[in-house]
Amino acid sequence: MIRTHDAGALRAEHADATVVLAGWVARRRDHGGVVFLDLREASGVVQVVVREDDLAHDLRAEYCVKVTGTVRVRPEGNENPDIPTGAIEVVAERIEVLSEAAPLPFPLDGSQDIAEETRLRYRYLDMRRPELASALRVRSQATYAVHDVMREHGFVNVETPYLTRSTPEGARDFLVPVRLQPGHWYALPQSPQLFKQLLMVGGMERYYQIARCFRDEDFRADRQPEFTQIDIEMSFVDQEDVIAVGEALVARLWSEVLGYEIPLPLPRMPFLEAMARFGSDKPDLRFGQELVELTEFFADTPFRVFQAPYVGAVVMPGGASQTRKELDAWQDWAKARGARGLAYVLVQQDGTLGGPVAKNLSEAERAGLAEAVGAAPGDAVFFAAGTRRASQELLGAARLEIGQRLGLIDSSKWSFLWVVDAPMFEEDGEGGWTPVHHPFTAPKPEWTDTFHQDPGNALAYAYDMVCNGSEIGGGSIRIHRGEVQQRAFDVLGIGKAEAEAKFGFLLEAFQYGPPPHGGIAFGLDRLVTLLTGGDSIREVIAFPKTASGGDPLTGAPTPITPAQRAEAGVDHDPEAEKAEKAAKAGKAE
Amino acid sequence: MIRTHDAGALRAEHADATVVLAGWVARRRDHGGVVFLDLREASGVVQVVVREDDLAHDLRAEYCVKVTGTVRVRPEGNENPDIPTGAIEVVAERIEVLSEAAPLPFPLDGSQDIAEETRLRYRYLDMRRPELASALRVRSQATYAVHDVMREHGFVNVETPYLTRSTPEGARDFLVPVRLQPGHWYALPQSPQLFKQLLMVGGMERYYQIARCFRDEDFRADRQPEFTQIDIEMSFVDQEDVIAVGEALVARLWSEVLGYEIPLPLPRMPFLEAMARFGSDKPDLRFGQELVELTEFFADTPFRVFQAPYVGAVVMPGGASQTRKELDAWQDWAKARGARGLAYVLVQQDGTLGGPVAKNLSEAERAGLAEAVGAAPGDAVFFAAGTRRASQELLGAARLEIGQRLGLIDSSKWSFLWVVDAPMFEEDGEGGWTPVHHPFTAPKPEWTDTFHQDPGNALAYAYDMVCNGSEIGGGSIRIHRGEVQQRAFDVLGIGKAEAEAKFGFLLEAFQYGPPPHGGIAFGLDRLVTLLTGGDSIREVIAFPKTASGGDPLTGAPTPITPAQRAEAGVDHDPEAEKAEKAAKAGKAE
Repeated sequence: MIRTHDAGALRAEHADATVVLAGWVARRRDHGGVVFLDLREASGVVQVVVREDDLAHDLRAEYCVKVTGTVRVRPEGNENPDIPTGAIEVVAERIEVLSEAAPLPFPLDGSQDIAEETRLRYRYLDMRRPELASALRVRSQATYAVHDVMREHGFVNVETPYLTRSTPEGARDFLVPVRLQPGHWYALPQSPQLFKQLLMVGGMERYYQIARCFRDEDFRADRQPEFTQIDIEMSFVDQEDVIAVGEALVARLWSEVLGYEIPLPLPRMPFLEAMARFGSDKPDLRFGQELVELTEFFADTPFRVFQAPYVGAVVMPGGASQTRKELDAWQDWAKARGARGLAYVLVQQDGTLGGPVAKNLSEAERAGLAEAVGAAPGDAVFFAAGTRRASQELLGAARLEIGQRLGLIDSSKWSFLWVVDAPMFEEDGEGGWTPVHHPFTAPKPEWTDTFHQDPGNALAYAYDMVCNGSEIGGGSIRIHRGEVQQRAFDVLGIGKAEAEAKFGFLLEAFQYGPPPHGGIAFGLDRLVTLLTGGDSIREVIAFPKTASGGDPLTGAPTPITPAQRAEAGVDHDPEAEKAEKAAKAGKAE
Repeated sequence: MIRTHDAGALRAEHADATVVLAGWVARRRDHGGVVFLDLREASGVVQVVVREDDLAHDLRAEYCVKVTGTVRVRPEGNENPDIPTGAIEVVAERIEVLSEAAPLPFPLDGSQDIAEETRLRYRYLDMRRPELASALRVRSQATYAVHDVMREHGFVNVETPYLTRSTPEGARDFLVPVRLQPGHWYALPQSPQLFKQLLMVGGMERYYQIARCFRDEDFRADRQPEFTQIDIEMSFVDQEDVIAVGEALVARLWSEVLGYEIPLPLPRMPFLEAMARFGSDKPDLRFGQELVELTEFFADTPFRVFQAPYVGAVVMPGGASQTRKELDAWQDWAKARGARGLAYVLVQQDGTLGGPVAKNLSEAERAGLAEAVGAAPGDAVFFAAGTRRASQELLGAARLEIGQRLGLIDSSKWSFLWVVDAPMFEEDGEGGWTPVHHPFTAPKPEWTDTFHQDPGNALAYAYDMVCNGSEIGGGSIRIHRGEVQQRAFDVLGIGKAEAEAKFGFLLEAFQYGPPPHGGIAFGLDRLVTLLTGGDSIREVIAFPKTASGGDPLTGAPTPITPAQRAEAGVDHDPEAEKAEKAAKAGKAE
């Protein structure tokens, strides 16, 4: 090692020691003949005092230097209690420039907000800033903890292929042309789902992997084309076993990284209850403002809009004092979410109802509404009416918006829960059914024999872990019996040919004594974002991509050369090849 | 859990316990009214005794079953000392079929050699055989140990992108079309080399990752298009620091998995010595038969073939008794390796020399040869003459062949060493130079200022770890100073434009105070193959590919649909798009 000591580990007990340090010049202050340098490296920062000007006069920010010097206790009054090395400083005897730094494109001291594009372009400089440096170290700490927990629970770490075939996950696959088989393509896996089920058939019993997943989606905020999943699958288990492992994993992460002990077992909420009370399958329980169903209340309403299969409401405390402009903005907000608008009434101080909806209601409705929804004078009440799911989702979004605008969410709280008992199927809008999870999700035991007769009400043996309103993990018990799988395919309208084409190899594997099995997957990027208190998964990925899938640092993606294209077999024409072969064969005869 | 006990953990102390087990029927033996089943699961095998025939009469091999029964100590004389549960058996009271198994495509009891294609096609059955099941578990154990060692050494686990841009590693890249940027492609990384150097510039100081690497090579035996690397990089280090980490890692693996303590520090051998003595940069030291250089000896030879810049020999003990056919086969062997043939002499029992070469030698040469090469009567001596490197490699290959044919290699031995001080450059056959490692490999300190003046002799600060004749890891100290990098590029004939195009982003990063750094990468597949005593890395990969890059299980790769092709933007035509845009713009005006 070039250094003898870690700069950040120096303490008063090192006084008078001669040390060799190596790191970066984080800050330089000149004080009439004496120069103070903050020397930064992985272990922390230490103050270096340079008395002879010629030692330091070339040094600029982010020069990489080797400092030989003597530790001394700082003169009284000069201690810096904000940093662990604040009791001492190092008096430099020799400074060697290991490498110079050009003027920086942005300061690294956190004094400015830097455009994300610029930070990505110079990610290696961004990484020297404490925010990203610390986030990447937390990610590493979390990753070590994951391996520990899985080992303690007897899991086998297995790597599954990244060059494979299309999987039926719903999103688009990234494709890779195969030079050795022109005209054929690999797909990058959207998850190891099929492979982990094959590993269960293979008797691995307890599999995990920290796996990269690839989805070619239209980029939305906080989506990345590649992301990382803690992927887990277990045999001979039921839901309780998988849930126990999931809880152990998350509890360890919060305990090791934050010193926070998550109370276990986590509460569980049925999917339908979460939708009814919070308008979300990933409810944020850190605040109230629960939805109120008013379908019964408005059963005989004269108001046409509320003559709907579902009517519900959410209360905005103090919302009656919003300006007309603010109330109009809610309409735009709702329209941006695809709704027609957001009906509301304002509860006046005298208890009467204002707003355009009020006059459409019957007198009895007007009289009873505030009590029915739990609104006080001065509150606004927002309504949604229509199909149950869509209306609940709109109210759930309004609830979150209310919580954020009014500062109702206690950001120091952790709210973990399991959302369980999701429906197996939902209507696909075209008269058929689509799986809420995936087509291999097992029905709950009480629905095993009958789910196909009542697909709209059948419940799945599925569980999602939710933290502070984010889904951080999800899984299910899988179908392992061919007869059950066939009925599920029938409900989904997946014919034999389609099933065979899409995942015939899995169905074939299931002919050879598949064990009962189930699993779960956690989004590692999301977990670490929560652990670091960040806003975006991009803040916990070393080299993330922009919304259009580009990397401003490397310039990826790039055009390819005609030679690369030809060699990759992208334009392979099987007809032309057949003709060529035939011609050759003709000649040979 | 469906089971109450792990079958493989049952011992005499469990006698009389009621247990519920779950696993697979590995074997069934009917003994007049009593059926014995071997029940196999992850923890091992236990014998199940079924007295009532109707409980068992449907069970066939690889049925997945749940067995409820009572443990009892086996009757005296019936113990099976070959299995850990051999002292007991489980008397079944109830057997539930969890799933049935179709007739197997091959038996799983190891009684037959199964074609590899078939094993890959039914990999989930292959995985139930003890060989693969155990290899995958050893791989997992090794992976856990890697994380432990890296954590103990203060390394930060960082994930680098798999969707990135072409890297200059020499092999072909796999390419991925980018739908959101039609006409642009990602490349899958051949290694994280550039990213790990960027992480060092970013101040990560100690990085590691178990990373998938992708190389689109023509498949050779034991190459896979995707493979796994333990990737390590460190800042502020010299060669000794990286070597120490590498040794700690490998020592832990051998100790944890095999209980074998590798004597440390490992011996080191300069590259040129390895080539001179063993004709290989990854010498197998488990046997002798070292090469003998005869260039001086043949300095005045009348034999035209030996009038060469290098002449060397290797002795085959007892080789003089080979038949003409066997000696001819050596010629074919050499030709298959691209040589013209393999000159030889046979040392007769009376000390005279036989074989076609002998008569071309001078009398003095004939008289002194046996002593010069250390051959005894009855031995054969093989020669190579020509350029030093090619001749040494031919002799090195002959040496290995001799070692294998004559059983000279003690397969119970472990031979680890570092091969160090490799040349920086080698001739590219076209009058130029090519890097032996990669263009960022630093010169040894004593060559830093002068390597460009004598590229053929300059030594690199590089080190490869070799085990039993396989390279298992390799790395180097990297160049971190722009001026040194420029001279290296000059030697390699890499112009400014080319350097900019290929790795401009790394060179730019190096303008911002890059630390001195170096690293190493180990091939995890190869390490585990050695740990399991296997022949091929395919035996330690859960779902490997065939020589043509196919997966007989999933059927990957596959053709894609025209819709997928169109959507991926594979056939994006920038000219047509420009024309279209121009036309639209025209209309808009």
